[in-house]
Amino acid sequence: MPEMFTVLPPAEALKVLFDHLPLEIREESIATAEALDRVLAGELTAPSSLPSFPRSTMDGYAVRAEDTFGATESLPAYLTLIGEVPMGHASALAVGPAQAAVVFTGGMIPPGADAVVMVERTQKLDAETIEVLRAVAPGENVIHVGEDIQEGEPLFAAGHILRPQDLGGLMALGITDVRVAARPHVAIVSTGDEVVPPEQEPGPGQVRDINTYTIAGLVARAGGVPEIKGIIKDDYSSLLSAARSALEAADALVISAGSSVSTRDLTSDVMNELGKPGVLVHGVAVRPGKPTILGVCNGKPTIGLPGNPVSAMVVAGLFLTPLLQRMQGLKNPPAQRRETARLAHNISSVPGREDYVQVRLVEREDQLWAEPVFGKSNLIYTMVKAEGMVCVPLDSNGLHQGEQVEVELF
Amino acid sequence: MPEMFTVLPPAEALKVLFDHLPLEIREESIATAEALDRVLAGELTAPSSLPSFPRSTMDGYAVRAEDTFGATESLPAYLTLIGEVPMGHASALAVGPAQAAVVFTGGMIPPGADAVVMVERTQKLDAETIEVLRAVAPGENVIHVGEDIQEGEPLFAAGHILRPQDLGGLMALGITDVRVAARPHVAIVSTGDEVVPPEQEPGPGQVRDINTYTIAGLVARAGGVPEIKGIIKDDYSSLLSAARSALEAADALVISAGSSVSTRDLTSDVMNELGKPGVLVHGVAVRPGKPTILGVCNGKPTIGLPGNPVSAMVVAGLFLTPLLQRMQGLKNPPAQRRETARLAHNISSVPGREDYVQVRLVEREDQLWAEPVFGKSNLIYTMVKAEGMVCVPLDSNGLHQGEQVEVELF
Repeated sequence: MPEMFTVLPPAEALKVLFDHLPLEIREESIATAEALDRVLAGELTAPSSLPSFPRSTMDGYAVRAEDTFGATESLPAYLTLIGEVPMGHASALAVGPAQAAVVFTGGMIPPGADAVVMVERTQKLDAETIEVLRAVAPGENVIHVGEDIQEGEPLFAAGHILRPQDLGGLMALGITDVRVAARPHVAIVSTGDEVVPPEQEPGPGQVRDINTYTIAGLVARAGGVPEIKGIIKDDYSSLLSAARSALEAADALVISAGSSVSTRDLTSDVMNELGKPGVLVHGVAVRPGKPTILGVCNGKPTIGLPGNPVSAMVVAGLFLTPLLQRMQGLKNPPAQRRETARLAHNISSVPGREDYVQVRLVEREDQLWAEPVFGKSNLIYTMVKAEGMVCVPLDSNGLHQGEQVEVELF
Repeated sequence: MPEMFTVLPPAEALKVLFDHLPLEIREESIATAEALDRVLAGELTAPSSLPSFPRSTMDGYAVRAEDTFGATESLPAYLTLIGEVPMGHASALAVGPAQAAVVFTGGMIPPGADAVVMVERTQKLDAETIEVLRAVAPGENVIHVGEDIQEGEPLFAAGHILRPQDLGGLMALGITDVRVAARPHVAIVSTGDEVVPPEQEPGPGQVRDINTYTIAGLVARAGGVPEIKGIIKDDYSSLLSAARSALEAADALVISAGSSVSTRDLTSDVMNELGKPGVLVHGVAVRPGKPTILGVCNGKPTIGLPGNPVSAMVVAGLFLTPLLQRMQGLKNPPAQRRETARLAHNISSVPGREDYVQVRLVEREDQLWAEPVFGKSNLIYTMVKAEGMVCVPLDSNGLHQGEQVEVELF
C-alpha cells in the first residue's frame, strides 16, 4: 500500500536504500591492461622499489660529483673516459676518481659514480678525455633507487578508480593482474501495454520503448553492464515471472513502470513478492520523478522507475548511478562535469521538493546563460535539446532570472 | 635534421598537424543500442512526428473542454461515461457533447475530446456519470501530435556525441541504426633497448614498459582503439619495419621513443621514411614534453612521444586526444572536468613555454588547495599521486602561491 510510505527527500531515500544493502562487493581478477576505469577491490602496496637501479635523467657522463667541483668554462675539470654504459644491461664499468662513463637517459649509473654531467656541459678533447664545463652536485641528474616509489609504500586504497597513469604505474611494478569490483549487471525490464520495441512500427495508440535505452546508457556510464530484458505486459503474473528470472541472473533490477495508477501498484506488489524486505521507499520528493520505488529483494537492489522518460532519467541519475558506484565500492566518484552560468528565466518550485530543470547553455553578452528548455516534462526531446540540468534545492521556492547557477552537464 | 625545425607553441603545432590531415572521417553503421558515446557521422532529421497520436499526461477522463467551463466543487459539470480507452490500441470511442471516456497516462485521446480531467478532480456518481469539479482548458493534460519532435525537424548535427537520452530519442523514432565515425585504431609501438614487457622480471639496467599502457588508456578515453604492438629494439630497420606494418593496419601511429639523442633521431628518420610529408613538427614549447615529433605519413598521423612517462602523457593529452576527436569529426568535445583551487606553492616557469604541473587537491581552511606534487618530472608516480594538472601559460614566468588556478582533473 503506497499510502503507508512517506515521501522522502532524495538524499534520505538513498540512505534508506543503502542501509538495507549488503556491504560485500563482488570481485574479480582481470588483466591490468584491461582495467581502465575499473574500481580496485583491495589496497595495493609496492612489491618492489622503482627504479630498481639508479638511472640517469640525461644523456651525458656518469661521474663522481666531487671531481667536478669548481669546474667552469674557463677552468674545466678533465676526466678520463672509461667507456659507455649500454642501455638495458648492467655495466662492467666502475667509475673511479677523475673518471667518467658515457650514459644515456634512462641508463644505469655505474658503481662509483654519483652524478651525471649533461653532454651539453662537456667538451670532448680526444677519445679518452672530456672537459667538464660546469660542476654537478652529488645526485644531480640521477633518479635514485626507490625515488619513484619505495617497496612497501601504499599505492592505492580500495575503491580507487584506475586511470591511465595508474595502469602505467602498476605495469612498472609488474602488477599485470588486479582484483577489481565486478561490473554490476543490471537487468532492465520495461512494462506497458502500449510499448513496442523500437524496430517495430507502432500501431494506433502504441509507442516505441525509450526508457530501456536511456537507462542502459546510464548503467554503462556508471560502470555497470545493462541486461536488456524486453517489454513485459502490464499484468501481475507476467511481470512477476519476468522480474524474478531477470533478478536471479543479475545484481540489480530496474523496472521501467507503466505510469498509470494501476501499473504503479503492480510494480510495488511485484517488488514485495520478489524477496524481503521488498519495497523500502515509495515516492521521493523530486520533480520530475513520480512515482519512484526503491527496494531490496533478497539482498539485491530493485528500482521502479517512472514511465515518463524524463522522470526515468532524473530518478536513475539520483539513485541508480550512486547505487552502481556503491556496488563497486567506489570511494571518490569522479566529480560530475559542471558549468557555472546565469539563469535566463525564473524557475518556480515549492519548498520540500527538489526540482530538476533541463537547460541549454548559450553564450550571450560575453556570459554563459542557462536557458530552461520549455516543453512538458515528459518529452524526451527536452532532454535531447538540453546540455545539462539545474537543481532547485529542497528548501527553495524557485530560482531567479540572472542568478548564478551550477549546471550539471550530461 | 631536428635543427631545421622551430620549436612551436602547442596550439600552433596542433594546427600544423591538422592542416596536413585529410578531412574525411572513416564511417560505419552500428546499432543505436550500441552507440553510446559514439560520434554521429551525418546530420539526422526526424522521420516522423512524436508522438504520432495525441496522448494523455494523466490518469483521468478525456472530455471536450467546453463541457467543463465554469465547473467548481459546488457546481460540478455532469458528464456521461461512454467507456475506457485501452492502452496500446486505437479506441472505437468518440467523445460527444457532455460525454467522457476513461483514459490512462500515455493513452490515446479519442476523437472529439480535446482535454483530460485528472481523476483527482472528479467524482464518480454511478457507472455512467461523473462529476467534474474543476474546469480544464482545451489542450490541458494532452501531448499533441509532434509536440515532442516534428517530422523533418533536425535532430542532431554531424559530429554530435551520443548521450543516453539521444539513444532514447532515436529509438523513439525507430532509428535503430546510426552512421557514426569509426573508432580510430591507434597502433602503439614502444622502443628502447632497456624496456621489457611488464610480465617480465627486468634484468640489471632494464625497466618495464609504462608508456604503452598509459597511452592505450588515453586512446580509449578519447574514443579510439589502442593496438598494442610491443617493444621494438632501438635500431633503424627494426623500428621502420615494425612502424610500417603497424601503420598499415591502423589509422594512426604512436611511437613511444627511447629518450636518448640517438633514438630521438631514429624516430624522426623512420617517420620521414614511412610516407610523405613525414615529420612536420619536431619539438614543442611545452614542459615536460621533450622531444615531441608530429607528422603525417601518406595521410595517416604519426606521433613520436617522449620516453619519459610523464612527458609522454602530457604530450598525448595535448596532441593525441584532440587528434582522435578530430578523426571522429567530434564538433564539441566534452569539456574537461575542472576544479578551481588556490595554489599552495609558487610555480616558476619561463615565458615562451607552457608548463604542466601535477597537483594534489587538498581541503584546508575551508578552501580547496592545489599542491604541486614534488619529484622529478619523469617519475610516473608523480602522475599517480596527482588529481590533475595546472597549466602555466605560454607567456607567464610562473604562478604565485595563493593564486586561483584551474586544475584540469585526470
